[in-house]
Amino acid sequence: MMTPDLSSPAALPTPALLLDEERMKQNIARLAKRAEKLSVSLRPHVKTAKSVEVARRLTGGVPGPITVSTLAEAEVFFDAGHDDILYAVGIAPQKLERVQALRARGCALVVILDCEAQAQAVVQSDVPALIEIDSDGHRGGLRPDDPALIRTGRILHDAGCLRGVMTHAGESYTVRGAIAHADFAELERKAAVSAAGALRDAGLQCPVVSVGSTPTAHAARDLTGVTELRAGVYMFFDLVMAGIDVCAVDDIALSVLTTVIGHQPTKGWTMIDAGWMALSRDRGTAAQDVDQGYGLVCDVNGHVLRDLIVSSTNQEHGIVSHRSGVDGAMPDLPVGTFLRILPNHACATAAQHDRYNVLPQDGGPIQTWPRFGGW
Amino acid sequence: MMTPDLSSPAALPTPALLLDEERMKQNIARLAKRAEKLSVSLRPHVKTAKSVEVARRLTGGVPGPITVSTLAEAEVFFDAGHDDILYAVGIAPQKLERVQALRARGCALVVILDCEAQAQAVVQSDVPALIEIDSDGHRGGLRPDDPALIRTGRILHDAGCLRGVMTHAGESYTVRGAIAHADFAELERKAAVSAAGALRDAGLQCPVVSVGSTPTAHAARDLTGVTELRAGVYMFFDLVMAGIDVCAVDDIALSVLTTVIGHQPTKGWTMIDAGWMALSRDRGTAAQDVDQGYGLVCDVNGHVLRDLIVSSTNQEHGIVSHRSGVDGAMPDLPVGTFLRILPNHACATAAQHDRYNVLPQDGGPIQTWPRFGGW
Repeated sequence: MMTPDLSSPAALPTPALLLDEERMKQNIARLAKRAEKLSVSLRPHVKTAKSVEVARRLTGGVPGPITVSTLAEAEVFFDAGHDDILYAVGIAPQKLERVQALRARGCALVVILDCEAQAQAVVQSDVPALIEIDSDGHRGGLRPDDPALIRTGRILHDAGCLRGVMTHAGESYTVRGAIAHADFAELERKAAVSAAGALRDAGLQCPVVSVGSTPTAHAARDLTGVTELRAGVYMFFDLVMAGIDVCAVDDIALSVLTTVIGHQPTKGWTMIDAGWMALSRDRGTAAQDVDQGYGLVCDVNGHVLRDLIVSSTNQEHGIVSHRSGVDGAMPDLPVGTFLRILPNHACATAAQHDRYNVLPQDGGPIQTWPRFGGW
Repeated sequence: MMTPDLSSPAALPTPALLLDEERMKQNIARLAKRAEKLSVSLRPHVKTAKSVEVARRLTGGVPGPITVSTLAEAEVFFDAGHDDILYAVGIAPQKLERVQALRARGCALVVILDCEAQAQAVVQSDVPALIEIDSDGHRGGLRPDDPALIRTGRILHDAGCLRGVMTHAGESYTVRGAIAHADFAELERKAAVSAAGALRDAGLQCPVVSVGSTPTAHAARDLTGVTELRAGVYMFFDLVMAGIDVCAVDDIALSVLTTVIGHQPTKGWTMIDAGWMALSRDRGTAAQDVDQGYGLVCDVNGHVLRDLIVSSTNQEHGIVSHRSGVDGAMPDLPVGTFLRILPNHACATAAQHDRYNVLPQDGGPIQTWPRFGGW
């Protein structure tokens, strides 16, 4: 629990979350360029970052429009100057009081919903809303041709609360390559634009048409009819994104620093002090072409140690082994050696930590950026 | 992020971690009785609880001997009065400075290790240690007949740092029923007692013989030669423990309060505001006889809704469905309904929260007990 001000990650207490600022900057610039080319505004999702310092860098160095996944995020980021916020989890009526309190303080906070019961609750609280559209059967939302869309839209419209539609093709994570992701991007666009058209044909306003997921945002070829693009994990990337070719492994900006604490040579095991508490239980690459276990192993400088993965975890223990399972394939990693683990899922791994240890671009001392959690 | 002082869980912001104090009290009493019967002292592991209030109840209402998994835990619990602490993760040489700092403040902190390199580092810091013994091939530790045991013991002994041996049969989690767990308890006992005997035969001191895991602690028939028993998740229990018959589902003291936020009736899905951020990514029951998904669903009063599980999660969304997958089998759960989710793995679920909302035994207002994380 020390506050480090150090010139090398090897001086940090482990396990510790490291953030490569240069890689993050490149990842942010990449999507900003795409949004510009596609003529849509970008509304980054800050659920992965949960950091005021990271969020500011996502919106051009000043507090800009963001997407959040909790009201705790809305409150923290509003206090940090972000006053244009989309809360992109279906609204529970019990949460409207907190939404109203933020709006009363000047936050242009918009909620999402996908049924008439929610719409009735929302209009009673005079809160603006987007209707969630189901573009790929992934989770929530109304299909664009569901008659409930117009009924829900009319409840909102008549009270002046209808702001538009939004969709998220979460299933895009399950396919690999830019061509497949572009297909999902077109699913998102078609569903959202078609729902917006249905609302307008019924005489209802629909200024906002919001789409996005990290894979589709990087692959979309055309976003005609869309007004804004959302994405969440793109500033850090992770092994799940690398596994579906949205990024390269060398683009991953987040890693967990860990120390070797033992060996079981007959089994080819090297024990580290990063277990699931530091890495998370996420096994998002398990169903991909290459299963990265609980993470891919790098040396202290971030260079991948080929085919070494965290094959198993307990709460504060990780087991590093070679994919082949053969001990002879393991490099010499004495007790006390520092390693870095690239995460399967940046959102889940970052959530296990209360700070980023930021490796600066210019090689200066490591900075500490706090991150928060809770609801 | 409000501090609730409420008479019903239905008034808490969701998702929220609930702790049933009565159940916890019964679970604590159950293992205390066993330890007494087996004539061993109990050294509860507080890695699951990470709460000063819970820890005090584990050690009879006053700060007593505990086991920890991080130095952050050692520091917090020492500040709360616990001065007899075992840090039960193989020591990294870089951590000895913090260990020494705690010891200098009066904390009887003991570390564990399983190789000569660690022993050399430990004696240079004059820190007492237990040697970790491998009783079941689960993770770290030396086999009792490994010649390195005596070599490592002698390094410690000659510097006055040898305190004893410890083992943990983590593989006991993979078998079901008291008979199978008793077999693992005997594996633990035999390995630890045999290692202690080998050290003593070599003329080395070995006062402490420490064993334990939650399944073996509840099933051990005889602990002759053992001096202390460790267990971690027993005060809360969880679906993993219920799935191997260490407890009943109705003994589980921890749950996550959540709110219904939507439906996909054609799929039999009810959406809730507890995703993996509130429940964790742990799928510990996946390999058991009954796969509980991401958790078993109860009504707001904690009564199990038969065969309803959280079948899928995203960061802040859970999908509740019937095991059969048939929508007709779902009860009516309108938007705004409160539910409680029993966790697969109490350690992982609790780690996602910064407080316990304690349902008191006497029906009074809900109390808030803070919990902490980090390293």
